[in-house]
Amino acid sequence: MFLNQRPLKVFSGQSNRALAQEICDNLGITLGNSETQKFNNDNIIVRYQESLREADVFIVQALSTPTSDNLMELLLMIDAAKSASAHRVTAVIPYYSYARSDKKDEPRISISARLVADLIQTAGADRVLTMTLHSPQVHGFFKVPVDHLSSEVVIANHLITHIDNVQDGVVLATDAGDIKRASALARRLNANLAFIDKRRLSDTNVQARGLIGDVKDRKVFVVDDEISTAGSLVEAVHVAKAAGATDVYVAVTHGVYVGPAVERIAALDAVEVCSTNTVEVPEWKLEQGKKLKVLTVAPLFAEAIQRIHTGESVSSLFE
Amino acid sequence: MFLNQRPLKVFSGQSNRALAQEICDNLGITLGNSETQKFNNDNIIVRYQESLREADVFIVQALSTPTSDNLMELLLMIDAAKSASAHRVTAVIPYYSYARSDKKDEPRISISARLVADLIQTAGADRVLTMTLHSPQVHGFFKVPVDHLSSEVVIANHLITHIDNVQDGVVLATDAGDIKRASALARRLNANLAFIDKRRLSDTNVQARGLIGDVKDRKVFVVDDEISTAGSLVEAVHVAKAAGATDVYVAVTHGVYVGPAVERIAALDAVEVCSTNTVEVPEWKLEQGKKLKVLTVAPLFAEAIQRIHTGESVSSLFE
Amino acid sequence: MFLNQRPLKVFSGQSNRALAQEICDNLGITLGNSETQKFNNDNIIVRYQESLREADVFIVQALSTPTSDNLMELLLMIDAAKSASAHRVTAVIPYYSYARSDKKDEPRISISARLVADLIQTAGADRVLTMTLHSPQVHGFFKVPVDHLSSEVVIANHLITHIDNVQDGVVLATDAGDIKRASALARRLNANLAFIDKRRLSDTNVQARGLIGDVKDRKVFVVDDEISTAGSLVEAVHVAKAAGATDVYVAVTHGVYVGPAVERIAALDAVEVCSTNTVEVPEWKLEQGKKLKVLTVAPLFAEAIQRIHTGESVSSLFE
Amino acid sequence: MFLNQRPLKVFSGQSNRALAQEICDNLGITLGNSETQKFNNDNIIVRYQESLREADVFIVQALSTPTSDNLMELLLMIDAAKSASAHRVTAVIPYYSYARSDKKDEPRISISARLVADLIQTAGADRVLTMTLHSPQVHGFFKVPVDHLSSEVVIANHLITHIDNVQDGVVLATDAGDIKRASALARRLNANLAFIDKRRLSDTNVQARGLIGDVKDRKVFVVDDEISTAGSLVEAVHVAKAAGATDVYVAVTHGVYVGPAVERIAALDAVEVCSTNTVEVPEWKLEQGKKLKVLTVAPLFAEAIQRIHTGESVSSLFE
Amino acid sequence: MFLNQRPLKVFSGQSNRALAQEICDNLGITLGNSETQKFNNDNIIVRYQESLREADVFIVQALSTPTSDNLMELLLMIDAAKSASAHRVTAVIPYYSYARSDKKDEPRISISARLVADLIQTAGADRVLTMTLHSPQVHGFFKVPVDHLSSEVVIANHLITHIDNVQDGVVLATDAGDIKRASALARRLNANLAFIDKRRLSDTNVQARGLIGDVKDRKVFVVDDEISTAGSLVEAVHVAKAAGATDVYVAVTHGVYVGPAVERIAALDAVEVCSTNTVEVPEWKLEQGKKLKVLTVAPLFAEAIQRIHTGESVSSLFE
Amino acid sequence: MFLNQRPLKVFSGQSNRALAQEICDNLGITLGNSETQKFNNDNIIVRYQESLREADVFIVQALSTPTSDNLMELLLMIDAAKSASAHRVTAVIPYYSYARSDKKDEPRISISARLVADLIQTAGADRVLTMTLHSPQVHGFFKVPVDHLSSEVVIANHLITHIDNVQDGVVLATDAGDIKRASALARRLNANLAFIDKRRLSDTNVQARGLIGDVKDRKVFVVDDEISTAGSLVEAVHVAKAAGATDVYVAVTHGVYVGPAVERIAALDAVEVCSTNTVEVPEWKLEQGKKLKVLTVAPLFAEAIQRIHTGESVSSLFE
Repeated sequence: MFLNQRPLKVFSGQSNRALAQEICDNLGITLGNSETQKFNNDNIIVRYQESLREADVFIVQALSTPTSDNLMELLLMIDAAKSASAHRVTAVIPYYSYARSDKKDEPRISISARLVADLIQTAGADRVLTMTLHSPQVHGFFKVPVDHLSSEVVIANHLITHIDNVQDGVVLATDAGDIKRASALARRLNANLAFIDKRRLSDTNVQARGLIGDVKDRKVFVVDDEISTAGSLVEAVHVAKAAGATDVYVAVTHGVYVGPAVERIAALDAVEVCSTNTVEVPEWKLEQGKKLKVLTVAPLFAEAIQRIHTGESVSSLFE
Repeated sequence: MFLNQRPLKVFSGQSNRALAQEICDNLGITLGNSETQKFNNDNIIVRYQESLREADVFIVQALSTPTSDNLMELLLMIDAAKSASAHRVTAVIPYYSYARSDKKDEPRISISARLVADLIQTAGADRVLTMTLHSPQVHGFFKVPVDHLSSEVVIANHLITHIDNVQDGVVLATDAGDIKRASALARRLNANLAFIDKRRLSDTNVQARGLIGDVKDRKVFVVDDEISTAGSLVEAVHVAKAAGATDVYVAVTHGVYVGPAVERIAALDAVEVCSTNTVEVPEWKLEQGKKLKVLTVAPLFAEAIQRIHTGESVSSLFE
Repeated sequence: MFLNQRPLKVFSGQSNRALAQEICDNLGITLGNSETQKFNNDNIIVRYQESLREADVFIVQALSTPTSDNLMELLLMIDAAKSASAHRVTAVIPYYSYARSDKKDEPRISISARLVADLIQTAGADRVLTMTLHSPQVHGFFKVPVDHLSSEVVIANHLITHIDNVQDGVVLATDAGDIKRASALARRLNANLAFIDKRRLSDTNVQARGLIGDVKDRKVFVVDDEISTAGSLVEAVHVAKAAGATDVYVAVTHGVYVGPAVERIAALDAVEVCSTNTVEVPEWKLEQGKKLKVLTVAPLFAEAIQRIHTGESVSSLFE
Repeated sequence: MFLNQRPLKVFSGQSNRALAQEICDNLGITLGNSETQKFNNDNIIVRYQESLREADVFIVQALSTPTSDNLMELLLMIDAAKSASAHRVTAVIPYYSYARSDKKDEPRISISARLVADLIQTAGADRVLTMTLHSPQVHGFFKVPVDHLSSEVVIANHLITHIDNVQDGVVLATDAGDIKRASALARRLNANLAFIDKRRLSDTNVQARGLIGDVKDRKVFVVDDEISTAGSLVEAVHVAKAAGATDVYVAVTHGVYVGPAVERIAALDAVEVCSTNTVEVPEWKLEQGKKLKVLTVAPLFAEAIQRIHTGESVSSLFE
Repeated sequence: MFLNQRPLKVFSGQSNRALAQEICDNLGITLGNSETQKFNNDNIIVRYQESLREADVFIVQALSTPTSDNLMELLLMIDAAKSASAHRVTAVIPYYSYARSDKKDEPRISISARLVADLIQTAGADRVLTMTLHSPQVHGFFKVPVDHLSSEVVIANHLITHIDNVQDGVVLATDAGDIKRASALARRLNANLAFIDKRRLSDTNVQARGLIGDVKDRKVFVVDDEISTAGSLVEAVHVAKAAGATDVYVAVTHGVYVGPAVERIAALDAVEVCSTNTVEVPEWKLEQGKKLKVLTVAPLFAEAIQRIHTGESVSSLFE
Repeated sequence: MFLNQRPLKVFSGQSNRALAQEICDNLGITLGNSETQKFNNDNIIVRYQESLREADVFIVQALSTPTSDNLMELLLMIDAAKSASAHRVTAVIPYYSYARSDKKDEPRISISARLVADLIQTAGADRVLTMTLHSPQVHGFFKVPVDHLSSEVVIANHLITHIDNVQDGVVLATDAGDIKRASALARRLNANLAFIDKRRLSDTNVQARGLIGDVKDRKVFVVDDEISTAGSLVEAVHVAKAAGATDVYVAVTHGVYVGPAVERIAALDAVEVCSTNTVEVPEWKLEQGKKLKVLTVAPLFAEAIQRIHTGESVSSLFE
């Protein structure tokens, strides 16, 4: 193992300081001292209040609401760190929201996930550390090395330790596009797999849409990469229940919970709705949402940062 | 409409000169004069035998077998054209084979589709024109503008004009990942949709794998982006037949046909196997494969080139 | 004069559509058709609803509040235009607010004006057209050509046509750093020049701060590049009045008017407070601010765009 | 503190070898062995006569007369060092003369300070270390990290130790544009501040130009960033004397002393004219100029180099 | 032939304005209006005194003595032209002197010909037009398109029209490395070829050095790419005479003539010494050198510029 | 000496694994574990089977037949290593075959040696280590540092230890262009020098072509950078023999041996034909070629790699 003699420093933007703090707690270091302000003209300024010279710097920032401000703050932090002579700057982006804009499915739009990757690299990021990108191809939008973590272990452990006989349950993907991730989780739980077929088989044959697989009299684990307004989630739980599922559990990586999401979840016929803390879930949402639960990915990020710092394999974390 | 006063010139590498010739025939121009040789040490040299100064140059080259030679020839042609003062060079890549390496699904591999995109841009390509990329995200691996054509119209027209009552048939995707494309074709044919579920629902529940949708007593149109060894194709036809399909037709974009493909197709219980000419299918394969049919995409490429040259909308081609 | 055969197209972001519309009216063209939305996760999407192929595209967007959203929208519009095959994209930024962060006057901050310039170029802008940058050096933060307009003519014309005997008045800069611009205006008005010395001559000698020049019994024209909270403005008017000025007029380029600005201006002992429409001033501010007046720079931007399009000298506009 | 295991090596171009030698003396290392020659065709060649592999290389070169040769030598030294596998190359530019060309105040000129920054980065510089740039915005013309030293401490120390009751004197800026720097020095000396107002308040009101502040019966310390022909200096000293100053001292950072400068200084009614050794002042100028004095910035550069090498804060040097 | 509607403009640096003027005369256009000055601190400033917007700009500058100033002026002119919105900038470098530093034949030197190419491209040159590079590989140091002219036609025409029975003469290369160029000229003259073998066959066998080929009783045409101090030239003429040559004529591309060159040439036992005007030969050298003659390459450069402008083949100029 | 704490890792492509293994043996390390495969569509995939994080990685790959596949494999290995977080990647290219395409000696061709250099740098190579480039200028086609080894020591040692009185022999270059290298070898052997003049002195004077220098009754050492079809070699041996040479020995760097080469060599009137193992010579060629001998450059590459890793001078290896 390579002995990195440069100091390891972790700083945080405003989007998810709780996660950054928890990562530092796991690493046994103090969260770096920096300050972000807005000028009267709404311009952002970032100041580091400690030297970064020759340090191995990690900047934690989720691209959650307000997304543009959070992205701009991240870009300013990267730029300021590089110009303050940081040896290496890793952008730690637990939730890379623009990943959903990964293709040109309409004419004359931006493939924004690529643009944002370019911006982050222009600002000076030497590496990126992120989690559960909407599509794995987004990795390739970066030229710099990316470590792409998966929340799967965290979610699997939660289900295994909190639910009896998890292997008798069924992992339910809310969309055919998510089957690959769902299937990996199912293997880890030793459980069955099912999914919702959202696409119409023909214009007249609407009843064909539905749940593919068998959930009758079984516990169902609805999975997805992200919940925003919880629209598809509500639908998925209904379909599962209608198909005879007993208890329904929901587990996603990014708990964005916007608009009617919290209200919908409170009313949902499910045992619990788990997400990780890649996006910070404020206290009031937890209270109103009632069955919301938040799993921490801080230990995983801390371990990845430690390994990046010392040059150990990160992929082996997931073997 | 903008009047482009620069000469339009189309050149071709060695991988699919027949397609390039046909594109030129559609455009009513002569295929550009160039020559490719190998030196004794297996190095490739490309020579343009007419001036390219200030021309709007299109270079047609599929990344088919031998892929490395064809890629290298393309890179040399782009570089030579730029250094010969071509005004603009568009790489026309009917079959971008490396698109399948679009993510890091194993540790320590290259996302080759991104690397190849970088190489093409380093050589000097100003634009790319391609067809039916394995995943649409590959578009975002390029920084230069890309026109991404779809073979869907060509295939739909073929089916509609050659098969009676195509709207009573069923479009069958060989994989859940291909549903989006299959569904678009089904809409165009006004036909139903079905697909093969290749993923195991659980380790013990293998019988669950199968055909999702209803093909009984119907004509089935098996679709995919590419046939290489024809392994999944054989399986798909069997599944369709076992599920009660009457006639089976196969239609894919890229007919790569390697290894046992031709033999397998000759023996296949299908009416015909169509592909387009993005990859050149040699005469002997057509003879041995018997039910092989090749649809031409040359008019589509010609129209796209014409529009790129004159600044008309390409996306409107597909409305 | 070079005859540009490519279509001239002007699009607008959300920050100042009124200005963009007025520019188009001056050019005698229709404002381009585009649409900007926010997804549930606060990500922005931009769609052009007409072809941009080979067009000479100008995108109007001021970096006013909400600055990060407006910047991000601009970046997305540039990127989408380039990837939609626009021939050339000029970012028209009437108010480049980050220009104020143009140096490293504290350790470990970003020179944000340079970073934002880099981002705009990374997105693909071929040129920039802007007005009255806080410091002229910011021009050099761009590698692409910049046309840097001055609002001086517009302001001078307003003062000359609305005020009697303007040549007997005094142009008052609110800060020594602004003297150069103030002096140019004074020359154009054939008026005298004065300025506020904001710097302390020593720690104990505070009475030395004050107004340098003679304004007694004269009309005073207070000038600055930007009003945000109107703090320095209030001070300048007080100082001028205390020094015996008769009527005080205020004229700035960028009327940002945030926080207490409108209220302060309503209470100000001045005849009028003019700014240009580089930043949109909403109706309610005009009503509450009472003495607020807005001068249009649309004809100037329209003329510059026309000249950039046809290859005529822009600098000669200011001779 | 990070322990840098790579060897620290300092090399020098021809423009100011004395300073480079003195820096090395302060660092306790030997000046690196290199050689610069001109071929018959006036081309420059640089040879390093010791290995630079993996070394932390600093190249000292002021952009003083002959500027083009000195710049070219610097570029060649950077390029040769990088291609000789230096780990990191820092361009140490005590006098960055092109900083004065920092804006486009005439049409169709180069913002040369940006161009020179680009050239230095193209040659391969990883960092820049410089002193007292004409305007602080020039910092932002570089993308690589810049440490921008100030000569203020050196000049302040000199005045404090050589002049009695320095706090009763007045720091006099020769131009309103220099007030910021002058004011910082005044604070350090605990002295008063004044400046020459060079701008005409109106075309007819020339008597208004003059000295702002009170220097009567006081010692005056005239400051500026650079003396070249000493024209403004002569004027400033006259103005100060006319305003009743007792002794006048001059202290600038860059003592360029060209054309009539030395002669003018010899005749000047001032006690002494100090500059630092960012530009080498030859013996004959010291003799002819009589009251010329040179302060060394070598210890400051040495300390900055040491801190860059070991990763300690450079900004804290100026707290 | 493509009709270029952009104005063709030719500007000149200070190194060879006579050539630029003559090129313009051949093109039937006026030499562009620009001005170059030096500030007191020896910094160069360039001003274009006419608009360059959308123009096709050619900047003529030889890298002759003073090389660094001439290079810097060229870089500034390119940068200023690009930022003044020139559509395309072609650096016309009749004498690219750094081409001689094209390899690393000593450790820890710069391959300066590559560095200078990088600098020219960083400044913004879109193309390069040059003549008779010392080694043809230098072409590849540029990424932008290069037109590499040869002076061979000019020299051949001169010899053919001024010398009787040129086909009975012998072309003599002064070095084995120049044989390729000499041989091409010999073919054009239909003359014989010989060369000076400058390398020792062994340490003891020095008499083996000498003239390879037969010049006895023949006219000899000594050729080289450049004469600087004329050292090798003197030697070559001696060797030719010693080997029985009748009349000796010298013809080179670049007449640099530094140091003792003119004196040596005056004393030389040769009929005439021709060079082209890629480097300006001042009147006094022509007078002192007596047998110096200057051939013009202006028509060749003019024709090449015309063809680059209108998109005609340049290579066909040399067929 | 700098102590490099990062692990040194050497990997190999498929072109010359024997050399890579031998380099590792010399270094006392294990050859890195990687795997290369071809997919059905002829696309290459490379997998590293051990972690490369923070390692100092060297990838050995000769650009020998099949050149395009070997180049593509190299590019993929570099890209995968960088994205797997290798600290530094050095492309070790014992035989850079494209070096022969180093100039534009025909219109409208690629200077492929530059293009390939660009591709290697685009893939992410931080350095290059190569041997005996066809022309030394190719070094300058790379922007990254290059260590350019020479096989001269290896060849000289072989001749000295295997041949009696080597100093009485003559080194014979097969072409005037190779004299520089031949002459260096001759000096090392303390032997004489001769060369074949391949160029016609005139169209009619063909008898002038021949051997320059004296080989009568001497041993002759024919040298060249590469043997491909052995055509020039056969000619050189004939000429040497015809000129009275006793024994003829052949020694080249790159033994490519294609087409009729082995057969020709078997029939050659020479004592032995040596090449180094920059290109792998398969067993059957050695058997058929009979007098083929292979000298190893592995110790030289191993030593260079060691020195690059530890920051010691590589050039001093050749003093």
